[in-house]
Amino acid sequence: MNHRVVARLLGRILIIETIALALPLTVCLIYGEAGSAKAFLITMACTAAVGLLALRVKAQHKQFYALEGFVVTALSWIVISLFGALPFYLSGAIPSLMDCFFEVVSGFTTTGASILSDVEALSHGLLFWRSFTHWLGGMGVLVFLLAVASIGKGDGHELYLLKAESPGPNVGKLTSKVGKSAKILYGLYVVFSLVEVLFLLAGGMPLYDSLCTMFATAGTGGFGIKNTSMAFYQSYYLQGVVTVFMALFGVNFNIFFLLLMREFSQAWHDEELRVYLGIMLSSIALITLNILPIYGNTFEAFHQAAFQTVSIMTTTGFTTTNFDMWPEFSRSLLVLLMVAGACAGSTGGGMKTARLVIALKSVKKEISRMLHPRQVKILRMNGKQLDNRIVKGVSLFMTAYFITVAASFLIVSLDNKSMVTNLTAVLSCLNNIGPGLDLVGPLGNFSSFSNLSKAVLTLDMLLGRLEFFPVIFLFNPAVWRVRKRIHEPD
Amino acid sequence: MNHRVVARLLGRILIIETIALALPLTVCLIYGEAGSAKAFLITMACTAAVGLLALRVKAQHKQFYALEGFVVTALSWIVISLFGALPFYLSGAIPSLMDCFFEVVSGFTTTGASILSDVEALSHGLLFWRSFTHWLGGMGVLVFLLAVASIGKGDGHELYLLKAESPGPNVGKLTSKVGKSAKILYGLYVVFSLVEVLFLLAGGMPLYDSLCTMFATAGTGGFGIKNTSMAFYQSYYLQGVVTVFMALFGVNFNIFFLLLMREFSQAWHDEELRVYLGIMLSSIALITLNILPIYGNTFEAFHQAAFQTVSIMTTTGFTTTNFDMWPEFSRSLLVLLMVAGACAGSTGGGMKTARLVIALKSVKKEISRMLHPRQVKILRMNGKQLDNRIVKGVSLFMTAYFITVAASFLIVSLDNKSMVTNLTAVLSCLNNIGPGLDLVGPLGNFSSFSNLSKAVLTLDMLLGRLEFFPVIFLFNPAVWRVRKRIHEPD
Repeated sequence: MNHRVVARLLGRILIIETIALALPLTVCLIYGEAGSAKAFLITMACTAAVGLLALRVKAQHKQFYALEGFVVTALSWIVISLFGALPFYLSGAIPSLMDCFFEVVSGFTTTGASILSDVEALSHGLLFWRSFTHWLGGMGVLVFLLAVASIGKGDGHELYLLKAESPGPNVGKLTSKVGKSAKILYGLYVVFSLVEVLFLLAGGMPLYDSLCTMFATAGTGGFGIKNTSMAFYQSYYLQGVVTVFMALFGVNFNIFFLLLMREFSQAWHDEELRVYLGIMLSSIALITLNILPIYGNTFEAFHQAAFQTVSIMTTTGFTTTNFDMWPEFSRSLLVLLMVAGACAGSTGGGMKTARLVIALKSVKKEISRMLHPRQVKILRMNGKQLDNRIVKGVSLFMTAYFITVAASFLIVSLDNKSMVTNLTAVLSCLNNIGPGLDLVGPLGNFSSFSNLSKAVLTLDMLLGRLEFFPVIFLFNPAVWRVRKRIHEPD
Repeated sequence: MNHRVVARLLGRILIIETIALALPLTVCLIYGEAGSAKAFLITMACTAAVGLLALRVKAQHKQFYALEGFVVTALSWIVISLFGALPFYLSGAIPSLMDCFFEVVSGFTTTGASILSDVEALSHGLLFWRSFTHWLGGMGVLVFLLAVASIGKGDGHELYLLKAESPGPNVGKLTSKVGKSAKILYGLYVVFSLVEVLFLLAGGMPLYDSLCTMFATAGTGGFGIKNTSMAFYQSYYLQGVVTVFMALFGVNFNIFFLLLMREFSQAWHDEELRVYLGIMLSSIALITLNILPIYGNTFEAFHQAAFQTVSIMTTTGFTTTNFDMWPEFSRSLLVLLMVAGACAGSTGGGMKTARLVIALKSVKKEISRMLHPRQVKILRMNGKQLDNRIVKGVSLFMTAYFITVAASFLIVSLDNKSMVTNLTAVLSCLNNIGPGLDLVGPLGNFSSFSNLSKAVLTLDMLLGRLEFFPVIFLFNPAVWRVRKRIHEPD
């Protein structure tokens, strides 16, 4: 383990966080919120100080392997969350440190699960920062870092970082030239974000609200700035715009990359995209039919079904209605969509559509192999042969996933809340969604959990966002000893 | 597909079922139950007639592959259930045909889920048959067939049948000489069954009750002959005997085989056995602690915890108390134990301990591979290298498992019962357990589900018992066309 390079990288990330904190500070100043401004100033000073200190560490050698990539990734999410939690604690807005950490990890991991029962009580600056963490976390602070700072140019560092960071089993075309690709990704992200803000402004939403809503949509996070989430904006237009943009940010960014390269046919025939849209549209149709008796009106039922389906499936977590009151079929379907999640290579969480497709293809192949034992069948996706390691990776991911669900579910059940609360709280955090059902439903929040449960759920958010392995590595003492004796005799 | 051999084999199975039906008929005669006796006689006549008709089919060639093995297996479970359901229908004890089929599939698959709210209303003969199906299903009617009739001696048929039939990823040593092994298996099964009956008689349980209780224990089925299941027998001794025998019937029969061969050290060091006992004992300890406040008395809490844990983990499903009222932690742990299940190569259901061990080892290996990329690591179980196909089989099983859970859960939710009811009903049926929680808890039953849900749950019982692939094959039209054109030009 090259501790020094790890320290230097963390230093850089803290400096970037300091710069990012200037934005909510500005908001505080605009709205004349002195208390919050002070909290942000102190936080910025601490973050910058620790960051500069870490940057003074001299690397003795440049060795940087996948291992270091994983460790930096996992550590950086924890470190930025620790510092990012300070404004809430220092301003007194959230009195418990555990709650502050929970809230900010929920932000950076783009989960959107909250311990707040009254978000509107927070200052504009704090709410802005809370939403802004979604946007920063959305594309991954490290892709951010790659694109902006281009650290370790050409050393191959970036590939390891991107591998550890990017959601889903493969990042396809984009990995070929990482530095450039990261810039394109980042560019797309910014452009889409700006376009969403314009659409929201056009619908009469105030600038501040538009920005915060956009942050949470782009990062597929879901923190709202109103107690009733998106239900506050009683406008089909505004809720419709958010629906469309949630769906867009749940698409694999490769697709937009392909569209940019004018490879329309390849984009249109992408298997993951087709399955993603297929699941989304059929779920909307089924839920619309199921909730029709409640809303009476087909358009209203369709609108609510579309918003909630897209919000849950893309793992955003905005709500326009209390879907916990929907019939059991719709509730169950939403729980399944929580697990399925968005496309690989998007800002969304969950298992990812690509993994579902690969898992289904494996089963289909096995059945066909039993039927025709002598026939050699090759697993393909988008016409290309699937590397056996990817297929294996999918099954390992699923195993890690279900072990995590089982263990978390059991620990959280010690709080003696309802089984539906416990199960959906775990699924919601692990899949980076936000709301669940029952006590953590659209009208509820996570405040009543014990600190132990909150710690487990926070870990789940990190495990889900980083897809298990970086976090597992971080807590494995063997990782910290690797190669130390060879390269770092001190 | 060699339809003729398939038909002949089904014919043999029906003849065996006819003979088996003579036992409950005798019970009817002993208790002077004329109505039930008549129902059994008609059923026997029908079963024998169809069986003899099928046996008249002449096989043109002897080709019999894995495919035929799978199809015979799946078909035979359905056919024996159809005929086995007749006595309940003809006697008028269960008026709905769907309910009769559900109940008997539940019996043969050793599930123990019931649509009856008052089992004590049934005649002695019918209750005897209901429990006896567990015993027949327990070791698998086909292993029964193998051991008794030794069909197709030496043609390799048996291997395919055993492969399709036996629960778990491998049957180890036992497959070397199938015919002989099946006889040993069957012998062990009978001996254990008799010993349990003796222990129960010694505790003062009537012979009839002892036999029925043994049938349900040996098959890890769980149908009780009392409305309060095992809670009726208010005796620590009797409930304790059942606890011990449930645990024994959940052990891989390889272990008993090894003990018989005096290979004690190998048996003791068996990894699956150790994990099985480890999970069982730690779960009992945790639940005892968790329910202590309810029972006050440590011995009582331990007794209840042990009975329920072993009953659920071995997928038997007997109950001595309403565990649905236990604290959330115990309920959640029981749900997880439902999924885990018993050992491979036992009469129990669920995922099987061996699969859990292999899945965990795969994840551990992958983490180690990431740490030491150049090191070649081999997956071992009990010191022997694990074939890559077994590891792959485990991940395919898990995929098929979760797809089935998701799809069934969604369809059953159309009945608009509680989510806990729906989820545990599906898990209970798929893992061949019996009771679930809430409406299908120890005091509930499956009668209020719609026919669609009952059909789905029945299919789940079969899928779980036969571990997916035989059933999938049965419903795949491509299977029925395979090789037809080559070998059967007509």
